[in-house]
Formats: sequence, C-alpha cells, structure tokens
Amino acid sequence: MFKPIEENEANGKVKEVYDDIKSSRHITEVPNFWRMLANDPNELERSWNSLKQVMKKGALDHVTKELIYVAVSITNGCEYCIRSHSFAAKKKGATDEMLKEMFAVVGLANKNNKLVDSYQVEVDEFLK
Amino acid sequence: MFKPIEENEANGKVKEVYDDIKSSRHITEVPNFWRMLANDPNELERSWNSLKQVMKKGALDHVTKELIYVAVSITNGCEYCIRSHSFAAKKKGATDEMLKEMFAVVGLANKNNKLVDSYQVEVDEFLK
Amino acid sequence: MFKPIEENEANGKVKEVYDDIKSSRHITEVPNFWRMLANDPNELERSWNSLKQVMKKGALDHVTKELIYVAVSITNGCEYCIRSHSFAAKKKGATDEMLKEMFAVVGLANKNNKLVDSYQVEVDEFLK
Amino acid sequence: MFKPIEENEANGKVKEVYDDIKSSRHITEVPNFWRMLANDPNELERSWNSLKQVMKKGALDHVTKELIYVAVSITNGCEYCIRSHSFAAKKKGATDEMLKEMFAVVGLANKNNKLVDSYQVEVDEFLK
Amino acid sequence: MFKPIEENEANGKVKEVYDDIKSSRHITEVPNFWRMLANDPNELERSWNSLKQVMKKGALDHVTKELIYVAVSITNGCEYCIRSHSFAAKKKGATDEMLKEMFAVVGLANKNNKLVDSYQVEVDEFLK
Amino acid sequence: MFKPIEENEANGKVKEVYDDIKSSRHITEVPNFWRMLANDPNELERSWNSLKQVMKKGALDHVTKELIYVAVSITNGCEYCIRSHSFAAKKKGATDEMLKEMFAVVGLANKNNKLVDSYQVEVDEFLK
Repeated sequence: MFKPIEENEANGKVKEVYDDIKSSRHITEVPNFWRMLANDPNELERSWNSLKQVMKKGALDHVTKELIYVAVSITNGCEYCIRSHSFAAKKKGATDEMLKEMFAVVGLANKNNKLVDSYQVEVDEFLK
Repeated sequence: MFKPIEENEANGKVKEVYDDIKSSRHITEVPNFWRMLANDPNELERSWNSLKQVMKKGALDHVTKELIYVAVSITNGCEYCIRSHSFAAKKKGATDEMLKEMFAVVGLANKNNKLVDSYQVEVDEFLK
Repeated sequence: MFKPIEENEANGKVKEVYDDIKSSRHITEVPNFWRMLANDPNELERSWNSLKQVMKKGALDHVTKELIYVAVSITNGCEYCIRSHSFAAKKKGATDEMLKEMFAVVGLANKNNKLVDSYQVEVDEFLK
Repeated sequence: MFKPIEENEANGKVKEVYDDIKSSRHITEVPNFWRMLANDPNELERSWNSLKQVMKKGALDHVTKELIYVAVSITNGCEYCIRSHSFAAKKKGATDEMLKEMFAVVGLANKNNKLVDSYQVEVDEFLK
Repeated sequence: MFKPIEENEANGKVKEVYDDIKSSRHITEVPNFWRMLANDPNELERSWNSLKQVMKKGALDHVTKELIYVAVSITNGCEYCIRSHSFAAKKKGATDEMLKEMFAVVGLANKNNKLVDSYQVEVDEFLK
Repeated sequence: MFKPIEENEANGKVKEVYDDIKSSRHITEVPNFWRMLANDPNELERSWNSLKQVMKKGALDHVTKELIYVAVSITNGCEYCIRSHSFAAKKKGATDEMLKEMFAVVGLANKNNKLVDSYQVEVDEFLK
C-alpha cells in the first residue's frame, strides 16, 4: 500500500532525519522502518526524536533498554521489532546468555499474567 | 469462584512451597498469588520452581529481570502483576528513575510495534 | 456513559430478546451484559442469536465450549467475561478440577506462544 | 539469531529431553520448537516437563486440552502454535467439526470480550 | 488444515452467500476470507450478515467504519485484516493522508494505553 | 507507587505543560493521566506535544480521531483510556449513535481478526 521513501527521494525534514539516523548509528543504509515512516514526515521526526531521547543511557544502560524493548515486542508478537531490536541489543553488547534469560522471563511473565486472571487474584494489602 | 488456601489449611506439597516462599523471600505472609495457585498444588509447585530458577541472578541481574517482568505485565495490562513485580523490583534495588525509564521504553515499543504493522514494514535484509 | 436498559423500559426487539434470554436460561433477571447491549437493539439481537447458535451442543458439548470461551477471556484479560462464563461452565456441569486444568493449559499456552516468538521458531515441514 | 540444536549435536540434558519427546510422541524427528528451546537447556527441560504434566489426561481429556491450547494461540495470533496444536488435536482424535466449532466460539468470545469493554459492563451481583 | 471452498464447489447456503458477496461488492471473485469461512456454512452466513449490517452507512460513514476496522486490526497485528480493510477503505474513498493520520492515532493510543497501565492512573472523578 | 504531581507542586517544564493543557482544553483541572506522567517531565512534554500534533484536525476530523483512539483502547482493554477518550469524543461532537456504531465495528473486527487466524487465511493476490 505504502512504499518506502528511498534515500535519493528524501528531502527537507525526511533527509535531515535520514542523515541523523545514519550518522548517529554509524550505518550506511536507512532501515525499512524509517523509510516507511517517511511517508509521514511528522511521524518520522516525532518517532526518531522520541527514540533518541528514550533509548539513550540514563538510570538504565543501553543494553537493558533494548532488552526491555524486545520483551515488549515478543509479548506483542511483532516480528520486525523482535529482530531489529535483538540485533540492536547485540550490537550494544548483549550476549546470547542475556537474550536467553530475557526470553525465559518473558515466557514466565506471560504465563503468570494469565494465571493471575484465571484465579482472579486480588491485589495484596501491602501492594496498595 | 476459587478461594485462597490459608496458611493454616496448607499441608503436604502446599505447606512445603509456602514455607519455601516465606524463607526465600524473608516475608511472614504468603502473597495472594501463591495462595490462589495453591488450589492446584501441582501448578503451585511448577510455578514456584520456575520462578526461582528463572528470576535468579545469571547473565542478567535481579533488577533487570524484574524490570523485564514488569514491562511484559504492562503490555498485557495485568494490574496485580505490575504492582507485585514493581514492588519486587524496588525491594531488589530498582530506583524510581529506573522504573520511569522502563515505562518510557514500554510506551515507545508499544507505539513502534503498531507503526510497524500499520506500514507493513518488511524485515531488512541484514536482519534475516 | 451508557446506562443499562431496565426490563420495565424494554419493548419491541429488546423485550423479545430479554424474554428469550430469561426463558432459555431459566433465570429471572437479565444479566448486565445484555442490558447494556440493549442500547443498540440490533447488536443485542445479533449477539444473542450468535450466542445461541454457537454455544449450543454440537460436535463439542456445552461444557467444552464454555471452557474454551473462558480460556479466550483469560487470554484477553476480560474480568466480566471470565466470571460470567466460569459461572456458566459450572452451571452446565464443569467441576473445579476441570477449571483448574483449563487454567494450567491457558498458562502454558501463553508461555509457549511467547517462547515461539522469542526464538522465532519456523513452521515445521510436516505442518505446512 | 539463534539456530536450532540438531539431534546429532545434542548431549546431556538436551539429548535426554529429545529422546523423551520422540519416544513419548512416537515421532522420529524433534519438532522445531524444541530444537530452538534447546539453546537454553534448562528452559527446554522446564517446558517439556510442564507440557507433559499439564497436557496429560485428567479431569479434561487430551482433545479438550489441545482445543483450549489452540483457542489461546488463535487469540494471541501465534501461527506456529495454531498449526502445531491443531495438528496435535487431530492426531489425538479431534474432528474437523470440533475444530470449526471451537473457531466459532473463539470468534464469538473475542467479539463479546470487546463489547464488554465498549459498554463498560459491570460484574453482576450474582457473579461476585 | 482447512482448504478454501472454491466457487464451483459451492452450493446451498454457501452459494447464496458467495453470490451476494459478489453482487454487493461488484467483484468477480470471492476473497479468501469468505472461501475459508465457507468450511462452516453457518459461520459464513452469520459473519457475512453481521458485516453487511455493521459496516453499512449509518451515523458513521463507510470510510470512518473501515478506518476503525483497520485500527483494530493493527492493534491485533492481523496482516490479512489490515491489508483487506485498508484496500476496502481506499476503494470507498479514503485517501493516503487519512490512512497515515489514522496510523499516527493508533500508534499514539497504543503508547498512551501502556503509560496509563505503567503509572496505574486512576479514573478522574469527572469521568465516572 | 508513584503519586500525581499536584498543580501547586508543578514548576518548570511541568508547569508549562499543565498551563498549556488547561488553556488548550478550556478546563480548570489537569486530568490524572498528565499529573501521573509529570513524574517524568520529559515523557509528559513528549506525550503532550505528540497528542496535540496527532489529534488535531487534518485529513481526519476531531471526532473520527477520537473514535479511532477509543477503538484501540477497547481492543487493549484500557478502562481509563476508553472513558477519557469517549468523553473527549462526545465533547467534540460525537453522538451516542456514533459511539454505538463504533462499538459494533470494534466487536466485529475483533471477531473476524480471530477467524482469520483460526482458518489461517492467506492474503489474496489482489491485496499484495
């Protein structure tokens, strides 16, 4: 339905974001996600700026943030998101052991979330 | 529908798990989740053993694992799970700043997951 | 925002459906779900007719259908739906043991669904 | 990202589980799900043991359990899970008529779950 | 598992619905969705009748209804549904600008839904 | 866990956003959502700015955007979001008839999304 905006078609706001993506990430090609978002230049700009702000090192380090991002994407079943942010996590230093432990937590949490609904567990007094 | 199994009603496998929960966690009361699961002693045992194995320090530390657990629970909208594992995260050393940064990642990932589906973004060649 | 349509306010299509609900189910009061749907009489009629057709005994018996309904509702985290169809399941003959085994399957399936996404498991040849 | 652990690479815990899968299920090849989980031998063991315990005949028969598993997988949109457990259901005796009736219940439950949220239906007194 | 029911195999209720789909929609081939549903003629009939009733112009116009349908499908991550109802939306007059603005709303709503759960926001007094 | 930031505690970026919310919306009190987000002033600013940009009249009018927002929130089961954006929709001119038709579309789309997964419907050639 929509087609990616190729780099040689980009201008104005889109070109600026494309350049920023490539230089911040030290990559030579803009990934499909951004090239599709470029169909809506304001969304591209908003999304890129949010990503830069949210994913930067703060109280949590880069790797932890990427692992959390992947955990959400698995829970939502978004293949592109799982693949691209697992890739990012590894590039930023995540090991296979870290990914596998994250997977185990995601599996467990999804199971327990549903057991809580199954048994209609009420919030404990000390949690209120 | 189901009622919690109180500590004074617990025996056999259930009592053993209750005792293990209280001693491993240094708490004096068994939380509602486990008291409800105790209606199915095998599920209680399986779930508690999995939790102990999965959430223990490994390549990822305790706090990171709890943050991932909460991120999944937010994505599933499970109030009990969000509250109990945010509590656990803080007890194990998570700061408010860490929680808030996790929340921001969860929000962003949920947004981007849906933008990927909106634009039907294809997996990049380098991710295959 | 919307208010339930009380039985003494019902007429026409709504009254007909209310009467059918009470006589088919041998109950004396119309449950909240139907009283809220009655704000849109066509939706009330469509939903009630679908429910009667879909939930009636066929290749699967009443209890199995109710258990499947609850399993879906747990996966979606819909409290009203879990409570009302667990109630229906028990009324139609489901035992506590059956409910608890269903809960265990729901927990397991939710965990495994996410492990499949975690490891990006491909469909086996024999399943295609 | 992760690669399946082939049967000739398996040893220790992984080999034991592989052998158990093949003999319990009377199959000659380990399905992809287990070969991917084998990247984390503890998760493989936990998951296989849980599956054996949870899916065995109890108050609910084999077929009913598989149908519930598929219903959850449809609600989560997990293709591998839908395919592999529909296959299992049929192998254990489920007929096409049973599968189709289950699909109809899953469709209906998903619709009604959302109508409950749309109209913000409150839990009936008799369900509390 | 199930195979589409081809038009030359259709008879009775299935043939009637197929004819109605083609004439109401001014198309010459029945789309895959309906050909698969035809495995369960009652579900085919129920689903087609509901669709005709629900998606017809009322207080909301055709385009708005299709956009809402796509928004739900994105949130559920259903590729077929996103593609077929984006196609329908465009056929009924939706512009690319309208689709892109809808995508932005869907992204935003998904983000904010999760921030509400993150911070456990309570319903404001004026909303009760 | 987190507490709302009251208006008399707000300063700097938070006070600016609070003032903008009240003046843009012609309201005298800041709703709970924004008072909770204010725990993370950057998230508050990002979220408010995105909301203003995304929800303003464009190719889609105000009411359509609010209806789409509510449709997503119902699909996610977020009570606060359903209530606050149904309220906003009505304030901007949505009638009860419009809301009820949207509910019917949301119910139908959720059902059909799952039937697509049930029958593993493949994308039609003309949709590719």
